[in-house]
Amino acid sequence: MQPSATRTKEPEIEFWFEFGSNYSYLSVMRIEDTAARRGVTVKWKPFLLGPIFKSLGWESSPFVLQKEKGEYVWQDMARLCHKYGLPWTRPTTFPRLALLPMRVALLGAEQPWMADYCRMTMMLNFAEDQDINAPEQVAGILTELGLPAGRIIDEAQGEANKLLLRQQTETARARSIFGAPTFFVRGEMYWGNDRLDDALSAAARPVTA
Amino acid sequence: MQPSATRTKEPEIEFWFEFGSNYSYLSVMRIEDTAARRGVTVKWKPFLLGPIFKSLGWESSPFVLQKEKGEYVWQDMARLCHKYGLPWTRPTTFPRLALLPMRVALLGAEQPWMADYCRMTMMLNFAEDQDINAPEQVAGILTELGLPAGRIIDEAQGEANKLLLRQQTETARARSIFGAPTFFVRGEMYWGNDRLDDALSAAARPVTA
Repeated sequence: MQPSATRTKEPEIEFWFEFGSNYSYLSVMRIEDTAARRGVTVKWKPFLLGPIFKSLGWESSPFVLQKEKGEYVWQDMARLCHKYGLPWTRPTTFPRLALLPMRVALLGAEQPWMADYCRMTMMLNFAEDQDINAPEQVAGILTELGLPAGRIIDEAQGEANKLLLRQQTETARARSIFGAPTFFVRGEMYWGNDRLDDALSAAARPVTA
Repeated sequence: MQPSATRTKEPEIEFWFEFGSNYSYLSVMRIEDTAARRGVTVKWKPFLLGPIFKSLGWESSPFVLQKEKGEYVWQDMARLCHKYGLPWTRPTTFPRLALLPMRVALLGAEQPWMADYCRMTMMLNFAEDQDINAPEQVAGILTELGLPAGRIIDEAQGEANKLLLRQQTETARARSIFGAPTFFVRGEMYWGNDRLDDALSAAARPVTA
């Protein structure tokens, strides 16, 4: 044990993600286990990617706007899911609207059910190819987790929580986030599921004073 | 030894790259060693990224056109070079013109000096922050490699070789390449230095008939 005076802050990683984002799917499925193995705490930061893309001048995902990259991305996803042992179905609708589940995620960001809730929502989108924005789908997941679905959805749809999600998205923009997933470790940005391991290594590295 | 009738083709990877591309720098520096360790032959495929970007509607590199991503890329490069043990200086000119060294690369693609020549050119750009398109710089590298610099540069600037580089770039476009580095293994595309290891694993994997 180090004496408390020289004890460094507990290692943590900020995880900025969107349920509509396919590369966020990979990180949502992987982050809890990989972070725990390195003793890193995950700070879940749901935000809306649509307004970020609009502020960059894009009307949709770059994977929709750039045909060549878009076609490549689905091959890449199939290979990466195979590598990570994750199920994969190319969504028939992309990117899927995720406003309601994102509002619920914001509400649950510090709750013990957050990681499970996020994985189940992501599985619905990228393994089961289903609408994730329908209240009955969100309610189904919350109920399966033993939670009071109606009350949570009502609070998620309340004005206060809606405003908080807009503010969190504005914070993402102010921090120069341009895609998802994005990680921050001690203020340094790491972009993309491909950088999750490097970001966790950085978080777990002792800080030299 | 397998009998020749059932012998599979020697594992190989196509490596499409550009001297102006910072992520190509990482792969140029790494590919010869990592491929050799897995018994994979590298097919060097120099092509011009500028005409590809233009055909996608971009007047320059996306790292120039998208301010947020552009700023991130230089942090990412510094971290990756540190991780790989490579020298790194952010180029004061980006992307650098590379027409002459690319023409020489096309000429040398199957020569024993190719890998050394490419690494030296990349070091000039991304470690020494120097113009790579000046004939005296290209000549300097070739001479250092013990090669007849004048004769090689003359042939590289000949109409036949210029046309071949235009054709190779057109082939890149026809194969839906949208960035560099890009790898192909048995016709499958892998985009980015982040996929070099996966691409080599795929190349080294025995083909099941």
